[in-house]
Amino acid sequence: MRFLDIIEKKKDKKELTREEIQFWIDGVVREEIPEYQSSALLMAIVLNGMSERETVDLTMIMRDSGDVYDLSLIAGIKADKHSTGGVGDKTTLALGPLVASQGVKIAKMSGRGLGHTGGTLDKLESIPGYRIALSNQELIDQVNRIGIAVIGQSDTSVPADKKLYALRDVTATVESIPLIASSIMSKKLACGSDTILLDVKVGEGAFMANQEEAEILAKQMISIGRSLGKDVRAEISNMDQPLGFAIGNALEVIEAIDTLKGQGPKDFTDLCIYSGATILQQAKLCENHKEGEDLLRKAIEDGSALVKLKELISAQGGDPGVVDDPKRLPQAKSITPVYASREGWLNRVASRELGILAMELGAGRAKKEDPVNHAVGLVVPHKIGDFVKAGDLLCSIYHDQPLDEMWLSRLQAAFGYQDSACEALPLIYKTI
Amino acid sequence: MRFLDIIEKKKDKKELTREEIQFWIDGVVREEIPEYQSSALLMAIVLNGMSERETVDLTMIMRDSGDVYDLSLIAGIKADKHSTGGVGDKTTLALGPLVASQGVKIAKMSGRGLGHTGGTLDKLESIPGYRIALSNQELIDQVNRIGIAVIGQSDTSVPADKKLYALRDVTATVESIPLIASSIMSKKLACGSDTILLDVKVGEGAFMANQEEAEILAKQMISIGRSLGKDVRAEISNMDQPLGFAIGNALEVIEAIDTLKGQGPKDFTDLCIYSGATILQQAKLCENHKEGEDLLRKAIEDGSALVKLKELISAQGGDPGVVDDPKRLPQAKSITPVYASREGWLNRVASRELGILAMELGAGRAKKEDPVNHAVGLVVPHKIGDFVKAGDLLCSIYHDQPLDEMWLSRLQAAFGYQDSACEALPLIYKTI
Repeated sequence: MRFLDIIEKKKDKKELTREEIQFWIDGVVREEIPEYQSSALLMAIVLNGMSERETVDLTMIMRDSGDVYDLSLIAGIKADKHSTGGVGDKTTLALGPLVASQGVKIAKMSGRGLGHTGGTLDKLESIPGYRIALSNQELIDQVNRIGIAVIGQSDTSVPADKKLYALRDVTATVESIPLIASSIMSKKLACGSDTILLDVKVGEGAFMANQEEAEILAKQMISIGRSLGKDVRAEISNMDQPLGFAIGNALEVIEAIDTLKGQGPKDFTDLCIYSGATILQQAKLCENHKEGEDLLRKAIEDGSALVKLKELISAQGGDPGVVDDPKRLPQAKSITPVYASREGWLNRVASRELGILAMELGAGRAKKEDPVNHAVGLVVPHKIGDFVKAGDLLCSIYHDQPLDEMWLSRLQAAFGYQDSACEALPLIYKTI
Repeated sequence: MRFLDIIEKKKDKKELTREEIQFWIDGVVREEIPEYQSSALLMAIVLNGMSERETVDLTMIMRDSGDVYDLSLIAGIKADKHSTGGVGDKTTLALGPLVASQGVKIAKMSGRGLGHTGGTLDKLESIPGYRIALSNQELIDQVNRIGIAVIGQSDTSVPADKKLYALRDVTATVESIPLIASSIMSKKLACGSDTILLDVKVGEGAFMANQEEAEILAKQMISIGRSLGKDVRAEISNMDQPLGFAIGNALEVIEAIDTLKGQGPKDFTDLCIYSGATILQQAKLCENHKEGEDLLRKAIEDGSALVKLKELISAQGGDPGVVDDPKRLPQAKSITPVYASREGWLNRVASRELGILAMELGAGRAKKEDPVNHAVGLVVPHKIGDFVKAGDLLCSIYHDQPLDEMWLSRLQAAFGYQDSACEALPLIYKTI
């Protein structure tokens, strides 16, 4: 087999065989295929596409390129969820304990943030003492004991995706539905859960710019899961504005805690209840979605979800005292309020720009190697459609360094006003 | 400027600016842009195309990436011709002296053979003593003195194309009309002639598989030339069977000599007269094509073209005695005749396969570094449409090594027969 012929074939819009995809991925992992050849194939895939069969094969071959978790020693149905990432997306922090409190088994491997999007691991690491690395045995024991663990995905898991993603990142070949679907699903499938709920974010703060593309991506990922007999479901949700109010690691931990206390922002609480009910259905722990929602609302009211979060933090070496005393989390040196410059209905709370502004405060990374400041970030207690008066609090800035004028004027520009009422955005467009 | 944005732009089917193309080519020549990024852009160009403006810009920028010949010190109109390459294509050897004998100035830079196609430089080097390297001053002096020089293109000419072509060759990005057009034209324009005649070969032994594509390529090259005020014309000619009879370096030199003696194969002689008349028109040395053809036929009859060939060989240090005594050229150790296996009309004289078979005898190179045996090759004195009887001479093999059975059966399979008359192939499809 010659790799040149494989590139040629995809260039000519032909379907690659399983063996050809295997030859490619093996060559990538062993570093036997030069990157200039892989990048030519990647661009041909971006422009000429891949069939469902090719995408499933690519996913399986990537999954098997490294360690695959075996969770069979955990009793019960192991549920996983994955968000394609956004701004203020602290869902795992609240949703995990919430469904675990109802008997779903959560053995979740999370990632770090990059660019304007945050990552669950960074958020968890803002809790003093929290260990993101558990051995296989520790993971299994902890989930069997308390029903939940949230850790970093092993370095030896899906090496093919790590290498390919690094190359895609520098060759403008990220945006391709089959490549995105196989990248996400190879990593999810390597985590070994029985069910997966995908939250495909749409909007300016998300990977997918429009609903149609998000739906195609969701369907591809579901069909990959189905071909393996997994219960995979997907929600398409909005990311044109941040999720919840907080953007920044410790700030988002606080918001997740507040949500499990029944005091979280409405949109974020609704999403947790909605997604959680779907996960309970997947785990066969409720008859229908409505029943699932009721169970989860009760778990918030009676404090069982909050107790589960404490158990999780404590099991992984973190300080569970942060739940009752958020002051134990890293604190920013200054909090600067920013006020609305005029009266009107908000028609723009630009999630991508707010994510980047928070990153520039130190909450996120421009490059993988950058350090993260867990204390800093933004709290934006408004949603598109809200009416504000001039002088109302628009945003609180949690920062360690002085703010510069340019940054502040970009922050103001992230908000837009109009003189007539503006409709609120839907939270979830569709469940598939 | 970020190269990633340039790849992104072409991926999204947008037009690149002159500055963006310059940034790319500068980065390629200075080796500052990694090959994995260039190859992604190349694949995007192959699949999404380039506008005429982009193609012209790319051509000019590549031309200017290295030394450009200045032929202004040569009096008269300097004409150049270029064939996209094929099997048995020894045109420069006969056509150059033919038109030079009529006053056209020929300062030609030629290339080497690769794969199934031959190269003029290899053919010339089969003449004992012939020097393909002349200094700039020697080149100008020789063309001013005798009207013709045929040399190798300088190593410092068009380095961008050398680097890009090497990358295209290993990333399945060769077949792209704008990339082929800019590659050919950047090299031709760097040679500094006033007029260019392009011979775009079509058929199984050629770069272009069909007439439509060849025509698009020809038109692109003409429009590149026109944007610089150059008289560029093109012929689309057939390469489904070898040109002339001989395939192999010394054998082709002999055939070129025979042609200038009026004893060459009809197809090759016709092509030289036809193309030569176009060149005379471009050089304004005749009123119309017919007059040009008459002048060239006379130059063959009265021996002036043959004299010009002797002058060329002798001026570049070669042995002009080869013209009268072909035995002075390298001789193969054995000549093995192959006979027709049956009676019938030939419907297949497969140029590509015959080119590869000759290459395997040593006449050509599988890889750039391979040595060439000037003596060996094939003489195939038949054309598609010819009637042969069983036992007629089909082909003479000039070889130094014993022939193996597999090779011989592939040689037989390069010929096809039918029981009813078969039409001869046209030589030139079109002039543009």
